[in-house]
Amino acid sequence: MPVGTRGTVKAMTWEEVTELGFRIVLGNTFHLYLRPGSGRVARAGGLHRFTGWDGAMLTDSGGYQVFSLKDLRRITENGVTFRSPVDGSYHDFTPESVMRVQHELGADIIMAFDECPPYPSTHEYARDSMERTHRWAERCLEAHEAARTGQLLFGIVQGSTYEDLRAASARAVSALPFPGIAVGGVSVGEPPPEMRRVVDITLPLLPIDRPRYLMGVGTPADILDAVAAGVDMFDCVLPTRLGRNGTLYTSRGRVNIQNARWAEDWGPVDPDCPCGVCRRHSAAYLRHLHQTDEILGSRLATYHNLAFYARLMERVRQAIDAGTFLAFREASLASWGRAASEEGPAGESHA
Amino acid sequence: MPVGTRGTVKAMTWEEVTELGFRIVLGNTFHLYLRPGSGRVARAGGLHRFTGWDGAMLTDSGGYQVFSLKDLRRITENGVTFRSPVDGSYHDFTPESVMRVQHELGADIIMAFDECPPYPSTHEYARDSMERTHRWAERCLEAHEAARTGQLLFGIVQGSTYEDLRAASARAVSALPFPGIAVGGVSVGEPPPEMRRVVDITLPLLPIDRPRYLMGVGTPADILDAVAAGVDMFDCVLPTRLGRNGTLYTSRGRVNIQNARWAEDWGPVDPDCPCGVCRRHSAAYLRHLHQTDEILGSRLATYHNLAFYARLMERVRQAIDAGTFLAFREASLASWGRAASEEGPAGESHA
Repeated sequence: MPVGTRGTVKAMTWEEVTELGFRIVLGNTFHLYLRPGSGRVARAGGLHRFTGWDGAMLTDSGGYQVFSLKDLRRITENGVTFRSPVDGSYHDFTPESVMRVQHELGADIIMAFDECPPYPSTHEYARDSMERTHRWAERCLEAHEAARTGQLLFGIVQGSTYEDLRAASARAVSALPFPGIAVGGVSVGEPPPEMRRVVDITLPLLPIDRPRYLMGVGTPADILDAVAAGVDMFDCVLPTRLGRNGTLYTSRGRVNIQNARWAEDWGPVDPDCPCGVCRRHSAAYLRHLHQTDEILGSRLATYHNLAFYARLMERVRQAIDAGTFLAFREASLASWGRAASEEGPAGESHA
Repeated sequence: MPVGTRGTVKAMTWEEVTELGFRIVLGNTFHLYLRPGSGRVARAGGLHRFTGWDGAMLTDSGGYQVFSLKDLRRITENGVTFRSPVDGSYHDFTPESVMRVQHELGADIIMAFDECPPYPSTHEYARDSMERTHRWAERCLEAHEAARTGQLLFGIVQGSTYEDLRAASARAVSALPFPGIAVGGVSVGEPPPEMRRVVDITLPLLPIDRPRYLMGVGTPADILDAVAAGVDMFDCVLPTRLGRNGTLYTSRGRVNIQNARWAEDWGPVDPDCPCGVCRRHSAAYLRHLHQTDEILGSRLATYHNLAFYARLMERVRQAIDAGTFLAFREASLASWGRAASEEGPAGESHA
């Protein structure tokens, strides 16, 4: 899922998102709650109508963003109080209010309200937080079922980086009647091997008859690792955020288009890329647009990166169908030189 | 001509510029000389190849931008010395060097190097400057003819706001073998009635068998006034710059999309506008995108404004062909409430 934080996949039109092959995007409950407000979105007829996106949509729980506001919150059994970074006003998120907000936004898939503990957390804090998240999950289910909106509500596994907690959370959340299960609390600044360990611990404990969604992940290499562990769904800001900053994914790894080496490269930034940007424009032109902070530079790099991710996921699906996924994964990692996972911390990948 | 300052019509792809109906865009010699450099553009095969634009292109003379660098220049008979706003380095523009730069850029139409005097200027300064511009015009012609590039070189009339100087300049420039004549030194901060007076003085003195181009103009109302006076060509940053700032042209005048009145307006910003943005998106969504500084907000507003200008010019051409231009002009000004010419000084309209 490309990330459409505030009702737009940054720098893209919906026509472009569609033409790239994406059929579902993520919207951020926290951001949309603040602006334009979920009541306003509801009066517009929901997020699809408001934004003009006619594909599927998932909204996250707001948990990740609220718990990133470290100095601005107070957590109780009932929920969390935070100050708006837009205007400093106070707001409460509870399992019930977050369900109501996501009902108003009207996405096809919505997420249970969870606490996303920071990395690192003590075992005691992670356990208390996880148990509260489980109680909130039940309250979300109750509030959601009462509203009868027809949306799909997914649960979220927490437990920080502790094997016993991740296992307990996987079992507890799987036991609830969620039609899909997400793994949360990763990509929050932990080292990449820690994230892989959490995924490897958790995935075997999730039911295989429901979609398994790894939230906020990740680099192309992270995605291939997680697919190998059994993950079905991802969202990540990397292709869009890095595109705006002039970092492009190529068949030979990630490149910084502002580097002088591209200044007079009249060919495409990735000769193996079939996307419209690589067919039409030179690396030198892309570099010039980024050097001069032109919006078109952000547009073209975002489009190229989303095309890279869309193609990656398409090839993953084809390889799984053909029974050649592990070979595809090895070949991909070799061609990228694992560059994609080596640049920048995993924590970069969240919204 | 939409303005493509640095090799891109800001926020637009060339596919969009083409689909909007534009067949020629303007590039800024001064900006392109600094970045990416005209030598680099020449090595790319010229601006068309470098940017991927396959329509026609005109480059300006750089005069307007250089003479806007008030504290950074020294003017002599030979040319002007200025400091780069990018890196502080010193550069000389002379008639011969500006011809060479525009030959390297390779636009279809290039402009003679002129001095663009500030508003207000004394009669003495304006006369001296105009006479130097005429001498530079002859040097440009000589340098351009020697290069045999096949590009069309247009001359520029100056003379500030003085009737006798404008008349003298119109005659002097028209007497030279330029295939097109521009009126420069307007839209530099003078009150709108002054600009209209300059146009009304100058246009009757220009040959009708060559294109007459009013540089850096203007609002829709300015354009209708200038067409009435006989002007054939325009360039202006207003539709793109105002679009990025959330000001949209509509059939009822200019509106600020960030105004609260649009917050829950679920219809198009202009019900009479047939553009793709008005067909697909509500005013409320456009407002939200501008309130949250989303790139898509700049994109959609720019597209809409360029569609407004493209449609305006198409209707101007049709009305001229039908012999109904003056009626069209009156009806247009009435429907806009002359709002388009009343917001902001004329000087806003330059690159």
